[in-house]
Amino acid sequence: MSWHGGAAAVVTLTFDVDAEAPVLASGAHYARHLSTMSHQSYGPDVGVPRILDLLDELAVPATFFVPGWVAEQRPGLAMSIVDRGHEVAHHSYGHRPPTAMAPGEERADFERALAVFAAQGVEVVGHRAANWAATRETPALVAEHGLRYDSSLMADDRPYRLAVGETELAELPVHWSLDDWEQYAFLPDPPIGTVIESPAKVLELWRAELDGMRHYQCLFNLCCHPFLSGRPSRLLALRQLIEYALGCGDVRFTRCADLATAVLADPALPPRPLPPQPRYDSNSSASNAR
Amino acid sequence: MSWHGGAAAVVTLTFDVDAEAPVLASGAHYARHLSTMSHQSYGPDVGVPRILDLLDELAVPATFFVPGWVAEQRPGLAMSIVDRGHEVAHHSYGHRPPTAMAPGEERADFERALAVFAAQGVEVVGHRAANWAATRETPALVAEHGLRYDSSLMADDRPYRLAVGETELAELPVHWSLDDWEQYAFLPDPPIGTVIESPAKVLELWRAELDGMRHYQCLFNLCCHPFLSGRPSRLLALRQLIEYALGCGDVRFTRCADLATAVLADPALPPRPLPPQPRYDSNSSASNAR
Amino acid sequence: MSWHGGAAAVVTLTFDVDAEAPVLASGAHYARHLSTMSHQSYGPDVGVPRILDLLDELAVPATFFVPGWVAEQRPGLAMSIVDRGHEVAHHSYGHRPPTAMAPGEERADFERALAVFAAQGVEVVGHRAANWAATRETPALVAEHGLRYDSSLMADDRPYRLAVGETELAELPVHWSLDDWEQYAFLPDPPIGTVIESPAKVLELWRAELDGMRHYQCLFNLCCHPFLSGRPSRLLALRQLIEYALGCGDVRFTRCADLATAVLADPALPPRPLPPQPRYDSNSSASNAR
Amino acid sequence: MSWHGGAAAVVTLTFDVDAEAPVLASGAHYARHLSTMSHQSYGPDVGVPRILDLLDELAVPATFFVPGWVAEQRPGLAMSIVDRGHEVAHHSYGHRPPTAMAPGEERADFERALAVFAAQGVEVVGHRAANWAATRETPALVAEHGLRYDSSLMADDRPYRLAVGETELAELPVHWSLDDWEQYAFLPDPPIGTVIESPAKVLELWRAELDGMRHYQCLFNLCCHPFLSGRPSRLLALRQLIEYALGCGDVRFTRCADLATAVLADPALPPRPLPPQPRYDSNSSASNAR
Repeated sequence: MSWHGGAAAVVTLTFDVDAEAPVLASGAHYARHLSTMSHQSYGPDVGVPRILDLLDELAVPATFFVPGWVAEQRPGLAMSIVDRGHEVAHHSYGHRPPTAMAPGEERADFERALAVFAAQGVEVVGHRAANWAATRETPALVAEHGLRYDSSLMADDRPYRLAVGETELAELPVHWSLDDWEQYAFLPDPPIGTVIESPAKVLELWRAELDGMRHYQCLFNLCCHPFLSGRPSRLLALRQLIEYALGCGDVRFTRCADLATAVLADPALPPRPLPPQPRYDSNSSASNAR
Repeated sequence: MSWHGGAAAVVTLTFDVDAEAPVLASGAHYARHLSTMSHQSYGPDVGVPRILDLLDELAVPATFFVPGWVAEQRPGLAMSIVDRGHEVAHHSYGHRPPTAMAPGEERADFERALAVFAAQGVEVVGHRAANWAATRETPALVAEHGLRYDSSLMADDRPYRLAVGETELAELPVHWSLDDWEQYAFLPDPPIGTVIESPAKVLELWRAELDGMRHYQCLFNLCCHPFLSGRPSRLLALRQLIEYALGCGDVRFTRCADLATAVLADPALPPRPLPPQPRYDSNSSASNAR
Repeated sequence: MSWHGGAAAVVTLTFDVDAEAPVLASGAHYARHLSTMSHQSYGPDVGVPRILDLLDELAVPATFFVPGWVAEQRPGLAMSIVDRGHEVAHHSYGHRPPTAMAPGEERADFERALAVFAAQGVEVVGHRAANWAATRETPALVAEHGLRYDSSLMADDRPYRLAVGETELAELPVHWSLDDWEQYAFLPDPPIGTVIESPAKVLELWRAELDGMRHYQCLFNLCCHPFLSGRPSRLLALRQLIEYALGCGDVRFTRCADLATAVLADPALPPRPLPPQPRYDSNSSASNAR
Repeated sequence: MSWHGGAAAVVTLTFDVDAEAPVLASGAHYARHLSTMSHQSYGPDVGVPRILDLLDELAVPATFFVPGWVAEQRPGLAMSIVDRGHEVAHHSYGHRPPTAMAPGEERADFERALAVFAAQGVEVVGHRAANWAATRETPALVAEHGLRYDSSLMADDRPYRLAVGETELAELPVHWSLDDWEQYAFLPDPPIGTVIESPAKVLELWRAELDGMRHYQCLFNLCCHPFLSGRPSRLLALRQLIEYALGCGDVRFTRCADLATAVLADPALPPRPLPPQPRYDSNSSASNAR
């Protein structure tokens, strides 16, 4: 059985329930900025319930990446998602990018999130790095703690088996063009985004990529943020996108955890090692060239 | 009687008559920049009269948020808006963001604006923070001075009753996607904006959000700036939007003050407290996780 | 006779022939950046001849704002434009924004440009400030040297008579939305612009504004830069715009100089003084409010 | 025989195979940023094979500009492109902009790349500067090493013969509007790009420019990056663009090397010298004007 199960493209609907975390990670003083905080709380408080209803209506499964801090702040949130039949996965503790942390800090943040989910009885089997900013240490950390997949890299648009020491992870690649952030996010403080795109443009962008991925048999790993895509017109566009995909007849919807299992069991996908760290010495050019 | 009066969506047309204030708040030396000053004065001097005529023609009410400084600089402006049947509301004194002020400064600025409106005989019953940058102190300030509503937060897209100590405010939420600033604003000095969007795109964006809000029964709280939306093609697009909404047959237009009264009297909307200030300690992650 | 001569809208096609000047004004070291310099030289060397041919074909007049430095660097350029029946006007000497100069520097730069045009036998009767960054001193400088109009302010979208001491200038207002820079300009070094818009979008934007201006009887004062709008597809879009305007039947094309004469002779346009410099003291708010 | 061979427009499809180089050139520490590195490695590893297949299917030739560092890191890459019938050309060693290097550094970087291609048996006859940031020294460097053409300048949209001392180069001009970077590139770290455009918009932009260039008989010198345009929907749009051009019937496709030969042999294109370095002294304005 191949990872795609014969489908032209596989869709994983994923929602990064970041709430206030990315803003606070960029500056703890934003806790005082009531307007900005309210902009972020809309995600879990208004967006998530609507998204869950939409997924119910369309009968498609999804994966919710939740920072541990967010799960801690809203104790019932993660389990309420699981109770609706969806997957909750690891999205760091405090939504600080690993590339901005020392290795010891990354480990501590990673484990702190695991502790939160364990305390809440929520089983997590996959991980996505905050800001999609995985370091070279991240895959080993994910593997060491027994998770099955990571979803933070962009080396392909089809899943692959990432060899990490003795074990393997399924890598479910992401891409900025399938992220609602670049299309919709705007805040003046902290300064995020420029113009705000219309849902019609975003629908067109994503439909085109889905069609392209059906041509090349790829993973359409969509990433939406409830504080962004939970807004009314954007939800209607997301509904149209899902209905379009369902109507194609050759697209399979799956949770990331289930896809990871299929990927790790697909013999046509041989394990790939991490690429070696690129060596780039801008000063050596003169000496070497002569 | 519910806040929406049975309508699928409620529309509040609001105009932030900022004139030169936001530019001067970012640097008093811009007073010398005659081109930039003229770009801003277009708002009250050309945009507002055209907007008032458009509202007359279409027979829809609106709310104009006016900084006290602007009302002071153009003595007849606020009353001329009231005389046309619209509401004038509090939009700070000098259009400095509260989040950039010490609490004492925010209070002084807030009260100075109230003094201007009182001196002009203009009754204000609602408030919108400059830059939509309310602090955690802002709601109490609004309630303390007897205003009925605030319109600076984004925790929902339906109005809610905000509990503030012993009293309540109606919160009429805003959102960046219903603001003309991100679509149209451009100045090189101070540097504001990037590309300038076409009115056709903006009309499409806002119509889609109105349709989404009719689906979810929300408040379409549109925010336009006369120095931006007062330009000819943008006014024609705004006219088309209003005509579309009127043609829907299930949309109600109201001034913010009247909506606030309905919100405060709607028993189906229980008071919500301010959310607690988020505690986010990025340093504690290592210690807590072990 | 009114300034608009009974037309629904008046069109002034203007071309700011900036060449290398704005880039060098932002840093003289860019003279070494051959790629960037070549990007700018395209304007006078390729763009201007094509634009002149297009104007011939469509038989419409135009005004070319030329920095003195550019006229000096390419000695035949200004006169070759005049010889084709168009107007050449003053656009500073070195394309440095007046707001970045001390008053004495602004005067020196202004007069140096006049000297260049005088030496070349090119009569100039109007002025546009570099970067549309006029200071409060600029109008007096324009009037003192006997020019008839300025085209750097944005207080209206219809021409007006600007009272300057004992004399008057015609002000022919500009606006960022009728400038090709925000739509097309991109350079990484110096960093200018973000995405590059398609000519179809720009054509739609400008057609909509022309229609809006026909509704409100305004001045459609279009500003194009030959290094931007001289590119093939953009020229075709500009041609379509002009053909559309010609087809309207109620639009009048004129050179700025001729419009200025009509404006100054229109008794329905009473002289407006410069607005007083706004007084904005952000520190006084606390003391005054109490 | 003229350079265009009687075609209305000539198309050179070019692909800048930058991989990790531009990111590492902006900061060697990005080697640790696994997500960003994976975003860049997608180019040679996934994008290039798909592009080669697409070119095969449509039977059109192309030119691949490859930094020497990239060729070194992936030893078989350059030759595999040549083996498919396409051209590989010089695109610096480390993708550092020449304008950011001292002349000695530029030379060393330039020669180091030549050494890599020589060692791999890949003959290169043309050059494109990293970041399209050629200095005034770059053309002499290209000529001195016996290359036939450069493709880094923007002084025209038709090829020209660039006189360099005793010899000549063919200059095949580029332009930002025919570059996929401004349309598609987005990374948060290093910060690149803002919104991500849809392939439908880009197709429309490029088709319009091709039509404009057919009108003016120009060189449509398209620049795509495999890490950007190798994505599924973008490849489909590129396919549509090529099919459109093929369907025009008056468009000729060629490799840059072959075009350069035709340009250098076209007597209707007289050699143009490098323009003199512009002299721009912002301080002299006051003294000279009096």
